[in-house]
Amino acid sequence: MVVSAPSGTGKTSICREFIKMYPNIEFSVSYTTRPPRPGEVHGKDYYFISEDAFKEQIAQGEFAEWVENYGYLYGTSRKTMSAFLKGTDLILDVEPRGAKTLKQNYLGGVFVFILPPSMDELKWRLSRRGVENEGIMKERLEAAMDEIGEIVWYDYVIFNDRLERAIDYLRAIYLAEKSRRDRLIGKIRNFLK
Amino acid sequence: MVVSAPSGTGKTSICREFIKMYPNIEFSVSYTTRPPRPGEVHGKDYYFISEDAFKEQIAQGEFAEWVENYGYLYGTSRKTMSAFLKGTDLILDVEPRGAKTLKQNYLGGVFVFILPPSMDELKWRLSRRGVENEGIMKERLEAAMDEIGEIVWYDYVIFNDRLERAIDYLRAIYLAEKSRRDRLIGKIRNFLK
Repeated sequence: MVVSAPSGTGKTSICREFIKMYPNIEFSVSYTTRPPRPGEVHGKDYYFISEDAFKEQIAQGEFAEWVENYGYLYGTSRKTMSAFLKGTDLILDVEPRGAKTLKQNYLGGVFVFILPPSMDELKWRLSRRGVENEGIMKERLEAAMDEIGEIVWYDYVIFNDRLERAIDYLRAIYLAEKSRRDRLIGKIRNFLK
Repeated sequence: MVVSAPSGTGKTSICREFIKMYPNIEFSVSYTTRPPRPGEVHGKDYYFISEDAFKEQIAQGEFAEWVENYGYLYGTSRKTMSAFLKGTDLILDVEPRGAKTLKQNYLGGVFVFILPPSMDELKWRLSRRGVENEGIMKERLEAAMDEIGEIVWYDYVIFNDRLERAIDYLRAIYLAEKSRRDRLIGKIRNFLK
Protein backbone atom coordinates (compact mmCIF):
# COMPACT_ATOMS: atom_id res chain seq x y z
CA MET A 1 0.00 0.00 0.00
CA VAL A 2 1.64 3.18 -1.22
CA VAL A 3 0.48 6.41 0.37
CA SER A 4 1.19 9.79 -1.18
CA ALA A 5 0.13 13.29 -0.23
CA PRO A 6 1.29 16.86 -0.61
CA SER A 7 3.56 18.09 2.17
CA GLY A 8 1.74 18.85 5.43
CA THR A 9 -1.35 16.75 4.69
CA GLY A 10 -0.87 14.58 7.76
CA LYS A 11 0.24 11.52 5.78
CA THR A 12 2.94 10.51 8.25
CA SER A 13 0.58 10.63 11.27
CA ILE A 14 -2.04 8.62 9.39
CA CYS A 15 0.47 5.92 8.40
CA ARG A 16 1.96 5.75 11.91
CA GLU A 17 -1.40 5.38 13.61
CA PHE A 18 -2.54 2.84 11.05
CA ILE A 19 0.44 0.51 11.50
CA LYS A 20 -0.05 0.60 15.26
CA MET A 21 -3.30 -1.30 14.61
CA TYR A 22 -1.61 -3.87 12.39
CA PRO A 23 1.81 -4.82 13.74
CA ASN A 24 2.17 -7.39 10.93
CA ILE A 25 2.29 -4.64 8.34
CA GLU A 26 5.83 -3.59 7.63
CA PHE A 27 6.54 0.12 7.28
CA SER A 28 8.99 0.84 4.49
CA VAL A 29 11.77 3.04 5.81
CA SER A 30 13.12 5.17 2.95
CA TYR A 31 16.70 6.25 2.42
CA THR A 32 17.44 9.96 2.20
CA THR A 33 20.30 12.42 1.99
CA ARG A 34 18.22 15.07 3.77
CA PRO A 35 19.47 15.82 7.28
CA PRO A 36 17.22 14.54 10.09
CA ARG A 37 14.65 16.94 11.56
CA PRO A 38 14.43 17.22 15.34
CA GLY A 39 13.02 13.99 16.74
CA GLU A 40 13.56 11.91 13.60
CA VAL A 41 15.27 8.60 14.24
CA HIS A 42 17.69 6.83 11.88
CA GLY A 43 16.23 3.46 10.89
CA LYS A 44 12.73 4.40 12.00
CA ASP A 45 11.80 7.56 10.09
CA TYR A 46 14.47 7.29 7.43
CA TYR A 47 17.88 5.84 6.84
CA PHE A 48 19.91 9.04 6.76
CA ILE A 49 22.89 8.50 4.49
CA SER A 50 25.40 10.67 2.67
CA GLU A 51 24.97 11.68 -0.93
CA ASP A 52 27.99 9.56 -1.88
CA ALA A 53 26.52 6.49 -0.21
CA PHE A 54 23.16 7.15 -1.90
CA LYS A 55 24.77 7.47 -5.34
CA GLU A 56 26.73 4.30 -4.73
CA GLN A 57 23.45 2.48 -3.98
CA ILE A 58 21.93 3.88 -7.17
CA ALA A 59 24.95 2.61 -9.12
CA GLN A 60 24.53 -0.84 -7.53
CA GLY A 61 20.86 -0.89 -8.58
CA GLU A 62 19.75 -1.16 -4.99
CA PHE A 63 16.77 1.18 -5.27
CA ALA A 64 13.29 0.14 -6.36
CA GLU A 65 12.61 3.84 -6.87
CA TRP A 66 14.44 7.05 -6.09
CA VAL A 67 13.78 10.74 -6.71
CA GLU A 68 15.36 14.10 -6.09
CA ASN A 69 13.29 16.60 -4.15
CA TYR A 70 14.49 20.12 -3.29
CA GLY A 71 18.09 19.01 -3.77
CA TYR A 72 17.82 15.92 -1.56
CA LEU A 73 17.62 12.30 -2.65
CA TYR A 74 14.96 9.86 -1.44
CA GLY A 75 14.66 6.19 -2.28
CA THR A 76 13.07 2.82 -1.50
CA SER A 77 15.42 -0.13 -1.33
CA ARG A 78 14.85 -3.27 -3.37
CA LYS A 79 15.30 -5.30 -0.20
CA THR A 80 12.14 -3.72 1.23
CA MET A 81 10.25 -4.58 -1.93
CA SER A 82 11.46 -8.18 -1.85
CA ALA A 83 9.55 -8.60 1.45
CA PHE A 84 6.45 -7.44 -0.44
CA LEU A 85 7.14 -9.93 -3.24
CA LYS A 86 7.31 -12.70 -0.63
CA GLY A 87 3.85 -11.78 0.68
CA THR A 88 4.51 -9.32 3.51
CA ASP A 89 2.00 -6.47 3.72
CA LEU A 90 3.95 -3.30 3.28
CA ILE A 91 3.04 0.35 3.66
CA LEU A 92 5.14 2.93 1.86
CA ASP A 93 5.13 6.68 2.27
CA VAL A 94 6.36 7.72 -1.17
CA GLU A 95 5.83 10.84 -3.25
CA PRO A 96 4.03 10.49 -6.60
CA ARG A 97 7.04 10.23 -8.91
CA GLY A 98 8.49 7.39 -6.86
CA ALA A 99 5.05 5.82 -6.45
CA LYS A 100 4.61 5.77 -10.22
CA THR A 101 7.86 3.82 -10.63
CA LEU A 102 6.61 1.28 -8.08
CA LYS A 103 3.27 0.99 -9.90
CA GLN A 104 5.08 0.29 -13.15
CA ASN A 105 7.41 -2.31 -11.65
CA TYR A 106 5.36 -4.17 -9.03
CA LEU A 107 2.01 -5.84 -9.51
CA GLY A 108 -0.66 -5.90 -6.82
CA GLY A 109 0.16 -2.58 -5.19
CA VAL A 110 -2.60 -0.31 -3.90
CA PHE A 111 -2.12 3.43 -4.38
CA VAL A 112 -3.73 5.87 -1.99
CA PHE A 113 -3.61 9.66 -2.30
CA ILE A 114 -4.42 11.79 0.73
CA LEU A 115 -5.83 15.27 0.19
CA PRO A 116 -6.46 18.02 2.69
CA PRO A 117 -10.17 18.88 2.97
CA SER A 118 -9.87 22.05 0.87
CA MET A 119 -7.48 24.20 -1.10
CA ASP A 120 -7.50 26.84 1.67
CA GLU A 121 -6.55 24.17 4.18
CA LEU A 122 -3.71 23.04 1.87
CA LYS A 123 -2.37 26.61 1.72
CA TRP A 124 -2.65 26.98 5.46
CA ARG A 125 -0.86 23.69 6.09
CA LEU A 126 1.92 24.55 3.66
CA SER A 127 2.44 27.85 5.45
CA ARG A 128 2.63 26.16 8.88
CA ARG A 129 6.12 24.84 8.23
CA GLY A 130 7.40 28.41 8.30
CA VAL A 131 7.16 30.75 5.33
CA GLU A 132 10.28 32.74 4.64
CA ASN A 133 8.63 34.80 1.91
CA GLU A 134 5.85 34.93 -0.66
CA GLY A 135 8.07 33.36 -3.32
CA ILE A 136 8.80 30.23 -1.29
CA MET A 137 5.13 29.84 -0.41
CA LYS A 138 4.23 30.09 -4.10
CA GLU A 139 6.90 27.52 -4.96
CA ARG A 140 5.56 25.11 -2.32
CA LEU A 141 2.01 25.49 -3.57
CA GLU A 142 3.14 24.83 -7.13
CA ALA A 143 5.01 21.72 -6.00
CA ALA A 144 1.90 20.53 -4.14
CA MET A 145 -0.26 21.14 -7.21
CA ASP A 146 2.19 19.16 -9.36
CA GLU A 147 1.85 16.26 -6.94
CA ILE A 148 -1.94 16.52 -6.85
CA GLY A 149 -1.92 16.39 -10.66
CA GLU A 150 -0.72 12.78 -10.33
CA ILE A 151 -3.93 11.81 -8.52
CA VAL A 152 -5.40 10.61 -11.83
CA TRP A 153 -3.69 7.21 -11.67
CA TYR A 154 -4.17 6.52 -7.95
CA ASP A 155 -6.67 3.86 -6.85
CA TYR A 156 -8.08 5.61 -3.79
CA VAL A 157 -8.41 9.15 -2.46
CA ILE A 158 -8.84 10.05 1.21
CA PHE A 159 -9.83 13.56 2.25
CA ASN A 160 -8.10 14.16 5.57
CA ASP A 161 -10.60 16.41 7.32
CA ARG A 162 -10.20 14.58 10.63
CA LEU A 163 -7.24 12.37 11.52
CA GLU A 164 -9.37 9.52 12.98
CA ARG A 165 -11.61 9.51 9.94
CA ALA A 166 -8.64 9.37 7.56
CA ILE A 167 -7.11 6.49 9.54
CA ASP A 168 -10.45 4.67 9.47
CA TYR A 169 -10.59 5.02 5.69
CA LEU A 170 -7.00 3.81 5.25
CA ARG A 171 -7.84 0.82 7.43
CA ALA A 172 -10.99 0.19 5.35
CA ILE A 173 -8.98 0.26 2.13
CA TYR A 174 -6.53 -2.22 3.61
CA LEU A 175 -9.27 -4.64 4.80
CA ALA A 176 -11.23 -4.33 1.55
CA GLU A 177 -8.14 -5.03 -0.54
CA LYS A 178 -7.46 -8.08 1.64
CA SER A 179 -11.03 -9.22 0.81
CA ARG A 180 -10.72 -8.90 -2.94
CA ARG A 181 -11.63 -12.21 -4.50
CA ASP A 182 -8.55 -12.20 -6.72
CA ARG A 183 -6.33 -11.92 -3.62
CA LEU A 184 -8.12 -14.82 -1.88
CA ILE A 185 -7.83 -17.50 -4.54
CA GLY A 186 -5.68 -19.73 -2.28
CA LYS A 187 -8.07 -19.41 0.65
CA ILE A 188 -11.12 -20.10 -1.54
CA ARG A 189 -9.42 -23.17 -3.01
CA ASN A 190 -8.71 -24.43 0.52
CA PHE A 191 -12.33 -23.89 1.44
CA LEU A 192 -13.47 -25.99 -1.53
CA LYS A 193 -11.20 -28.92 -0.67
CA MET B 1 -23.58 -3.34 -3.02
CA VAL B 2 -24.95 -6.77 -3.78
CA VAL B 3 -24.41 -9.44 -1.13
CA SER B 4 -24.80 -13.12 -1.89
CA ALA B 5 -24.17 -16.22 0.18
CA PRO B 6 -25.33 -19.81 0.43
CA SER B 7 -28.33 -20.36 2.69
CA GLY B 8 -27.54 -20.19 6.41
CA THR B 9 -24.29 -18.24 6.06
CA GLY B 10 -25.51 -15.36 8.18
CA LYS B 11 -25.89 -12.96 5.26
CA THR B 12 -29.15 -11.46 6.51
CA SER B 13 -27.73 -10.70 9.99
CA ILE B 14 -24.60 -9.14 8.48
CA CYS B 15 -26.63 -6.89 6.17
CA ARG B 16 -29.05 -5.88 8.93
CA GLU B 17 -26.27 -4.95 11.36
CA PHE B 18 -24.37 -3.11 8.65
CA ILE B 19 -27.25 -0.87 7.63
CA LYS B 20 -27.85 0.05 11.27
CA MET B 21 -24.46 1.83 11.09
CA TYR B 22 -25.36 3.68 7.89
CA PRO B 23 -28.99 4.81 7.93
CA ASN B 24 -28.46 6.54 4.58
CA ILE B 25 -27.95 3.22 2.86
CA GLU B 26 -31.18 1.88 1.49
CA PHE B 27 -31.92 -1.81 1.93
CA SER B 28 -33.50 -3.31 -1.16
CA VAL B 29 -36.62 -5.21 -0.16
CA SER B 30 -37.21 -8.04 -2.63
CA TYR B 31 -40.54 -9.36 -3.86
CA THR B 32 -41.33 -13.02 -3.31
CA THR B 33 -44.10 -15.56 -3.70
CA ARG B 34 -42.72 -17.58 -0.79
CA PRO B 35 -44.94 -17.45 2.32
CA PRO B 36 -43.52 -15.39 5.22
CA ARG B 37 -41.57 -17.25 7.90
CA PRO B 38 -42.43 -16.54 11.54
CA GLY B 39 -41.33 -13.01 12.40
CA GLU B 40 -40.89 -11.82 8.80
CA VAL B 41 -42.60 -8.52 8.06
CA HIS B 42 -44.17 -7.52 4.73
CA GLY B 43 -42.34 -4.47 3.37
CA LYS B 44 -39.33 -4.97 5.62
CA ASP B 45 -38.02 -8.47 4.95
CA TYR B 46 -39.86 -8.99 1.66
CA TYR B 47 -42.89 -7.86 -0.22
CA PHE B 48 -44.94 -11.04 -0.03
CA ILE B 49 -47.14 -11.21 -3.12
CA SER B 50 -49.12 -13.87 -4.95
CA GLU B 51 -47.75 -15.77 -7.91
CA ASP B 52 -50.28 -14.07 -10.16
CA ALA B 53 -49.22 -10.62 -8.99
CA PHE B 54 -45.54 -11.57 -9.46
CA LYS B 55 -46.15 -12.83 -13.00
CA GLU B 56 -48.07 -9.67 -13.78
CA GLN B 57 -45.05 -7.61 -12.65
CA ILE B 58 -42.76 -9.73 -14.83
CA ALA B 59 -45.05 -9.12 -17.80
CA GLN B 60 -44.95 -5.37 -17.10
CA GLY B 61 -41.13 -5.46 -17.06
CA GLU B 62 -41.08 -4.23 -13.48
CA PHE B 63 -38.24 -6.46 -12.30
CA ALA B 64 -34.55 -5.61 -12.60
CA GLU B 65 -33.90 -9.30 -11.91
CA TRP B 66 -35.99 -12.27 -10.88
CA VAL B 67 -35.33 -15.95 -10.32
CA GLU B 68 -37.16 -19.09 -9.34
CA ASN B 69 -35.84 -20.92 -6.30
CA TYR B 70 -37.38 -24.15 -4.95
CA GLY B 71 -40.65 -23.33 -6.68
CA TYR B 72 -40.90 -19.77 -5.37
CA LEU B 73 -40.24 -16.55 -7.26
CA TYR B 74 -37.93 -13.78 -6.01
CA GLY B 75 -37.26 -10.44 -7.65
CA THR B 76 -35.82 -6.93 -7.34
CA SER B 77 -38.00 -4.14 -8.61
CA ARG B 78 -36.75 -1.62 -11.15
CA LYS B 79 -38.01 1.14 -8.85
CA THR B 80 -35.42 0.12 -6.24
CA MET B 81 -32.69 0.20 -8.85
CA SER B 82 -33.75 3.64 -10.05
CA ALA B 83 -32.82 4.98 -6.56
CA PHE B 84 -29.35 3.49 -7.15
CA LEU B 85 -29.13 5.13 -10.57
CA LYS B 86 -29.94 8.47 -8.91
CA GLY B 87 -27.03 8.05 -6.50
CA THR B 88 -28.53 6.39 -3.44
CA ASP B 89 -26.30 3.79 -1.80
CA LEU B 90 -28.18 0.55 -1.94
CA ILE B 91 -27.56 -2.84 -0.39
CA LEU B 92 -29.17 -5.88 -1.98
CA ASP B 93 -29.42 -9.39 -0.62
CA VAL B 94 -29.67 -11.32 -3.88
CA GLU B 95 -28.69 -14.85 -4.84
CA PRO B 96 -26.01 -15.32 -7.52
CA ARG B 97 -28.23 -15.77 -10.59
CA GLY B 98 -30.09 -12.55 -9.83
CA ALA B 99 -26.84 -10.80 -8.89
CA LYS B 100 -25.37 -11.72 -12.26
CA THR B 101 -28.29 -10.08 -14.05
CA LEU B 102 -27.71 -6.91 -12.00
CA LYS B 103 -23.99 -6.97 -12.80
CA GLN B 104 -24.78 -7.20 -16.50
CA ASN B 105 -27.33 -4.40 -16.46
CA TYR B 106 -26.04 -1.84 -13.93
CA LEU B 107 -22.60 -0.23 -13.86
CA GLY B 108 -20.82 0.62 -10.63
CA GLY B 109 -22.17 -2.20 -8.49
CA VAL B 110 -20.00 -3.95 -5.95
CA PHE B 111 -20.49 -7.71 -5.56
CA VAL B 112 -19.70 -9.37 -2.26
CA PHE B 113 -19.86 -13.11 -1.62
CA ILE B 114 -20.03 -14.36 1.97
CA LEU B 115 -18.67 -17.81 2.75
CA PRO B 116 -18.88 -19.80 5.96
CA PRO B 117 -15.42 -20.42 7.47
CA SER B 118 -15.25 -24.04 6.28
CA MET B 119 -17.08 -26.71 4.34
CA ASP B 120 -17.92 -28.55 7.57
CA GLU B 121 -19.46 -25.37 8.93
CA LEU B 122 -21.48 -24.97 5.71
CA LYS B 123 -22.86 -28.51 6.11
CA TRP B 124 -23.67 -27.88 9.74
CA ARG B 125 -25.42 -24.62 8.98
CA LEU B 126 -27.44 -26.17 6.16
CA SER B 127 -28.58 -28.92 8.52
CA ARG B 128 -29.65 -26.45 11.20
CA ARG B 129 -32.76 -25.47 9.28
CA GLY B 130 -34.13 -28.96 9.91
CA VAL B 131 -33.18 -31.98 7.82
CA GLU B 132 -36.05 -34.17 6.82
CA ASN B 133 -33.79 -36.80 5.26
CA GLU B 134 -30.41 -37.48 3.70
CA GLY B 135 -31.72 -36.73 0.22
CA ILE B 136 -32.88 -33.21 1.10
CA MET B 137 -29.59 -32.47 2.86
CA LYS B 138 -27.70 -33.61 -0.25
CA GLU B 139 -29.92 -31.46 -2.45
CA ARG B 140 -29.28 -28.40 -0.25
CA LEU B 141 -25.54 -28.96 -0.32
CA GLU B 142 -25.59 -29.27 -4.08
CA ALA B 143 -27.58 -26.03 -4.36
CA ALA B 144 -25.08 -24.29 -2.07
CA MET B 145 -22.16 -25.61 -4.14
CA ASP B 146 -23.81 -24.33 -7.32
CA GLU B 147 -24.07 -20.89 -5.73
CA ILE B 148 -20.46 -20.98 -4.52
CA GLY B 149 -19.40 -21.84 -8.08
CA GLU B 150 -20.50 -18.32 -9.03
CA ILE B 151 -17.89 -16.80 -6.72
CA VAL B 152 -15.49 -16.44 -9.68
CA TRP B 153 -17.05 -13.18 -10.89
CA TYR B 154 -17.62 -11.54 -7.48
CA ASP B 155 -15.42 -8.59 -6.45
CA TYR B 156 -15.00 -9.44 -2.77
CA VAL B 157 -15.20 -12.49 -0.53
CA ILE B 158 -15.86 -12.40 3.21
CA PHE B 159 -15.35 -15.48 5.35
CA ASN B 160 -17.96 -15.27 8.10
CA ASP B 161 -16.11 -16.89 10.99
CA ARG B 162 -17.37 -14.28 13.47
CA LEU B 163 -20.36 -12.01 12.89
CA GLU B 164 -18.62 -8.81 14.11
CA ARG B 165 -15.61 -9.51 11.91
CA ALA B 166 -17.79 -10.10 8.85
CA ILE B 167 -19.70 -6.86 9.50
CA ASP B 168 -16.40 -5.00 9.88
CA TYR B 169 -15.22 -6.31 6.52
CA LEU B 170 -18.50 -5.40 4.81
CA ARG B 171 -18.19 -1.91 6.27
CA ALA B 172 -14.56 -1.73 5.08
CA ILE B 173 -15.58 -2.70 1.55
CA TYR B 174 -18.24 0.00 1.61
CA LEU B 175 -15.86 2.73 2.84
CA ALA B 176 -13.08 1.65 0.47
CA GLU B 177 -15.43 1.67 -2.52
CA LYS B 178 -16.59 5.17 -1.48
CA SER B 179 -12.89 6.19 -1.54
CA ARG B 180 -12.15 4.88 -5.01
CA ARG B 181 -10.71 7.70 -7.04
CA ASP B 182 -13.03 7.02 -9.97
CA ARG B 183 -16.06 7.46 -7.65
CA LEU B 184 -14.72 10.78 -6.29
CA ILE B 185 -14.16 12.66 -9.52
CA GLY B 186 -16.76 15.33 -8.64
CA LYS B 187 -15.31 15.86 -5.16
CA ILE B 188 -11.75 16.06 -6.48
CA ARG B 189 -12.87 18.56 -9.13
CA ASN B 190 -14.52 20.69 -6.41
CA PHE B 191 -11.31 20.56 -4.39
CA LEU B 192 -9.30 21.85 -7.36
CA LYS B 193 -11.64 24.81 -7.97
